[in-house]
Amino acid sequence: MKAIPFTAVTIDDRFWSPRQETNSKETIPHELEQCRITGRISNFAKAAGSMEGNFEGIFFNDSDVHKLVEAAAYTLHSHPNPDWEDELDEVIDTIAKSQQNDGYLNSYFTLVEPEKKWQNLGMMHELYCAGHLFEAAVAHHQATGKQNLLDVACNFADLIDNTFGEDKRDGLPGHQGIELALVKLARVTGENRYMSLAEYFVTKRGHRPTVFEQELENPDLPGGLGAYKHHYTRDEKYDGTYSQAHLPIQEQTECVGHAVRAMYLYAGAADIAAETGDAEITQALDALWQNVEKRLYITGGVGPSGHNEGFTQDYELPNFSAYAETCASIGLIFWAHRMFLLKGESRFMDVLETALYNGALSGVSLEGTDFFYQNPLASRGGRQRNPWFGCACCPPNIARLLGSLGQYIYAIDDNDLWVNLYVGGNTETTIADDVSLRITQDTDYPWSGDVKLTVNPEKSAKFNLNLRIPGWCKEFDVSINGETINVKDTKNGYLSIGRTWQTNDSVELKLDMSVDRIYAHPNVRDNLGRSALRRGPLVYCFEDVDNPDGAFETLTLAENGKVEVVYDSETLGGITLIRGTGTIYDIKEWGNNLYLSEPSAKQLPVTAIPYYAWCNRGAGQMAVWVF
Amino acid sequence: MKAIPFTAVTIDDRFWSPRQETNSKETIPHELEQCRITGRISNFAKAAGSMEGNFEGIFFNDSDVHKLVEAAAYTLHSHPNPDWEDELDEVIDTIAKSQQNDGYLNSYFTLVEPEKKWQNLGMMHELYCAGHLFEAAVAHHQATGKQNLLDVACNFADLIDNTFGEDKRDGLPGHQGIELALVKLARVTGENRYMSLAEYFVTKRGHRPTVFEQELENPDLPGGLGAYKHHYTRDEKYDGTYSQAHLPIQEQTECVGHAVRAMYLYAGAADIAAETGDAEITQALDALWQNVEKRLYITGGVGPSGHNEGFTQDYELPNFSAYAETCASIGLIFWAHRMFLLKGESRFMDVLETALYNGALSGVSLEGTDFFYQNPLASRGGRQRNPWFGCACCPPNIARLLGSLGQYIYAIDDNDLWVNLYVGGNTETTIADDVSLRITQDTDYPWSGDVKLTVNPEKSAKFNLNLRIPGWCKEFDVSINGETINVKDTKNGYLSIGRTWQTNDSVELKLDMSVDRIYAHPNVRDNLGRSALRRGPLVYCFEDVDNPDGAFETLTLAENGKVEVVYDSETLGGITLIRGTGTIYDIKEWGNNLYLSEPSAKQLPVTAIPYYAWCNRGAGQMAVWVF
Repeated sequence: MKAIPFTAVTIDDRFWSPRQETNSKETIPHELEQCRITGRISNFAKAAGSMEGNFEGIFFNDSDVHKLVEAAAYTLHSHPNPDWEDELDEVIDTIAKSQQNDGYLNSYFTLVEPEKKWQNLGMMHELYCAGHLFEAAVAHHQATGKQNLLDVACNFADLIDNTFGEDKRDGLPGHQGIELALVKLARVTGENRYMSLAEYFVTKRGHRPTVFEQELENPDLPGGLGAYKHHYTRDEKYDGTYSQAHLPIQEQTECVGHAVRAMYLYAGAADIAAETGDAEITQALDALWQNVEKRLYITGGVGPSGHNEGFTQDYELPNFSAYAETCASIGLIFWAHRMFLLKGESRFMDVLETALYNGALSGVSLEGTDFFYQNPLASRGGRQRNPWFGCACCPPNIARLLGSLGQYIYAIDDNDLWVNLYVGGNTETTIADDVSLRITQDTDYPWSGDVKLTVNPEKSAKFNLNLRIPGWCKEFDVSINGETINVKDTKNGYLSIGRTWQTNDSVELKLDMSVDRIYAHPNVRDNLGRSALRRGPLVYCFEDVDNPDGAFETLTLAENGKVEVVYDSETLGGITLIRGTGTIYDIKEWGNNLYLSEPSAKQLPVTAIPYYAWCNRGAGQMAVWVF
Repeated sequence: MKAIPFTAVTIDDRFWSPRQETNSKETIPHELEQCRITGRISNFAKAAGSMEGNFEGIFFNDSDVHKLVEAAAYTLHSHPNPDWEDELDEVIDTIAKSQQNDGYLNSYFTLVEPEKKWQNLGMMHELYCAGHLFEAAVAHHQATGKQNLLDVACNFADLIDNTFGEDKRDGLPGHQGIELALVKLARVTGENRYMSLAEYFVTKRGHRPTVFEQELENPDLPGGLGAYKHHYTRDEKYDGTYSQAHLPIQEQTECVGHAVRAMYLYAGAADIAAETGDAEITQALDALWQNVEKRLYITGGVGPSGHNEGFTQDYELPNFSAYAETCASIGLIFWAHRMFLLKGESRFMDVLETALYNGALSGVSLEGTDFFYQNPLASRGGRQRNPWFGCACCPPNIARLLGSLGQYIYAIDDNDLWVNLYVGGNTETTIADDVSLRITQDTDYPWSGDVKLTVNPEKSAKFNLNLRIPGWCKEFDVSINGETINVKDTKNGYLSIGRTWQTNDSVELKLDMSVDRIYAHPNVRDNLGRSALRRGPLVYCFEDVDNPDGAFETLTLAENGKVEVVYDSETLGGITLIRGTGTIYDIKEWGNNLYLSEPSAKQLPVTAIPYYAWCNRGAGQMAVWVF
């Protein structure tokens, strides 16, 4: 089974196409400008010797530019934009020129500590930045067919491969990401060494003492120690859990440490497991997945703590202080996608869909130029998206996610086609011994659960059309060419329709999209007594702008109250609102009383909006979980 | 208005008499033994020169012995016990012998830092220990008529008065307590200098720079700085709020810092306000009271934070981590009593009663030999009373509270008698131009709201009998000599019955004691969505021992469910149980799911017990606030 790549998918969707267009028209030029004015692009020019001056910003800032190039490359395919295409080529050219003769490419080390390359892998992100360069190069090559950035990437990958590995230097990335990037590079180039190097990075990790501990004996460590205290325990020992280097991947069962690093590692490990069939890694990933499902916000956010930007313990999911970094939800999407490809089960796509429509999408404003780094599930009014960050990992990450959305929709095997996401548009592929096949989707998802698929093989062909029945969906109907089919049994979460398909066969899927009140496991202390509204893949929240009488954390939804679902094309770019009734205490009644025996509850109409759209009308109070 | 002293009150009550007996038979001998085996008593012998050896324990350990002497003195009046009376006399004798020629009495300084007396008032508790000595001496004199300990106290008080004050040395207690003690000493001796010194300590406090700041310039400070970091802000400046020395008392409006210190200060200030009629202090105390009512656990606990053993901010009342020190609830009782005496309003007695029957009483086990220092409102099973503590302020404090209970029941003025607590027994006093009066109460309070009072003046006398109608009581009936009276208007929270009373007049008061579900102000985040059960003065809680199917923090009480009130003489020394129905989630149903849309609620019978009685059947889970 493999994913149908973004290059073979056209998105023409009422929900996603405007977002991809905003990504092209607003987000990418905005981020290019931010990278320019913060010196991120000129760092490469300086490293190339074509510009004077010192390195600016944080040592891993190269990675933001690489991610942005990747985002722009995807977008060249779906929403090309002459306004920035020349600039993109210039940026790529500048990056390429900053490459050293031996293939090395990192503007910080080239400019600041040229003699200290590869000496502080644990903290200085050289391999992480390399990974993002590789991903950018692969996307650019796939989108354009051009070779220039791919050659740069391969030169650097060759240097890394010649430097690290069995019988060479021990080496590991302090911040993961290069693993899945090398897998992509191997697949697009056919170069098996890159795959082996990815496997080395995945499987070498966690054997003690780690290379990171050994590095610490260097009194002249590049970058110093200061900023990276999370690598250390309170007694100043190296703490492998922060970057998941505490145990070999095969022995890991608990999601620990920095959430983005964890997600990127697990994604890379899933790639390696799929490639090598390694049962131990697969088993570990199963355990890690089971564990992440105890540490997952309803929005698809992971990593509740700002302290380590990461995981804490099972069921610890505070709402107000939720860190739930945008990048971590994006990393979860990467991991979930690969788990699906590894195991063929829709439960992984359920999590992917949740993160996509909620915890990741909330990371960017509707206008496309303001970003959340953290994605709390409740706010007393002090949260706001920002146009940029000193550590700006999230903005280009959400841009590349939106640009590459096509790759998550379909997967294919010899005689099976999986439809994982319901997104309008089409894909062209071949199936059943090279029969050309075009699948078209027409849907108002996520506002409606009705999806019309046209299955259009060039000639009649026998294969299984596997329609994902989302975990949130309790009832569904399917008809083929207008005739309802009775099959309701799903396998691995898919309704598998095996038949000989004819040109222009029509499949209509109706997923019941009722509003559900969702309750969290009683061990989630912060949600005791509370529930959240979910409809389809969307988690809802209450903002005070819609609920001026107060619908914040003290709101109680009517117990058996009816809710009304209303599409409002005027609000927040067009959303389906959930309207109902609730009660709040009349705070005035309390006066100076701290305790009352019969406080009166004031009934009021309440309105919920999709979580992803919150904080687009100024900062305000918000709550996902209410009573 | 003044309180009728414990010496004029006999308690013969089904609830309190067994507790006073346990106090005499178990608690006092247990604490005497603890004071002996921990060196607290021999510290005095060493200071007296009658024993060899070094000072043992913490520098303020004298105060525990003083408080225990005070407790024993009260108990000599109500429940004398030959088992420890001789030992008490010996202890008093040992304390007396440790007094220095100049009147100084503090075994730590005498033994350890004799040259450094009075040099670290901010931290070394000399004046605090002196205050507890004075309270012990007053109680001992009142209970026995003996002069020996009172003379010791006066000698020491004279030294302090000669040392500190206007035109003498600046001085203040770092830990308050001596203020209210000097007031007692002044009243029992008639010595006005002690009252003036108390006023000096109350009114001198909070003028900057404080004596405490000046002391810090001493490089050779006794005791050192280490253990008392709470006196300092993060930037190492002296922080007056911890011991309420940040502002003059007249300007204080917010309860801050260490809760016990605060309570003792406010109590002392109320004494001074009553004595001097100082309107500014009274106004400040009104503001402080209004503030404490935003920082008060439903149990009468104050000071939610273990960090400073004290106050944080309005409405911050976490349940699991509630510090709510036993001593702080006792201190609140002292303050509330004096506020009542100052203002004649029953709302102060409401708080006193709440603290007495809940947050203070929970501080001692039913057996009388195990103690809570902290009184949380919820536990996951890790809390247990202890037989003693390194810092053992709470055990003798609860012992002296129980011993001195009589003084809180009645108050008197020329033509008014106030009945504040409904406790079986009697008092003998005089009223209305020296008419002897005996009031007898017969009641099953707090299990029943029925109270029978016999008003027995030696001859007919006109005065007002002021019966406190507790704040928790929504309906009541009163009859006199079998005839219901129609007066229902209360004034200052009292039903005032003014008439010419005859010998053996009988008053029957029926206070409706329904079970109330109490809700906390919506700003109390930890109680959002939750309610607690209260019946009469008693707050209830759920323990897992009574609710084996789970009735912990996830319990939801049936919305309109009936509750049944059952007196159970076999359980916990005889208590009224509240039984009802509730629901809990079936945790097994969740399995590996973190979120469910329709979790089933399991109905179950639930049983609540009075909060004071929790944790008397082993450590277990407990919750006051449930859904």
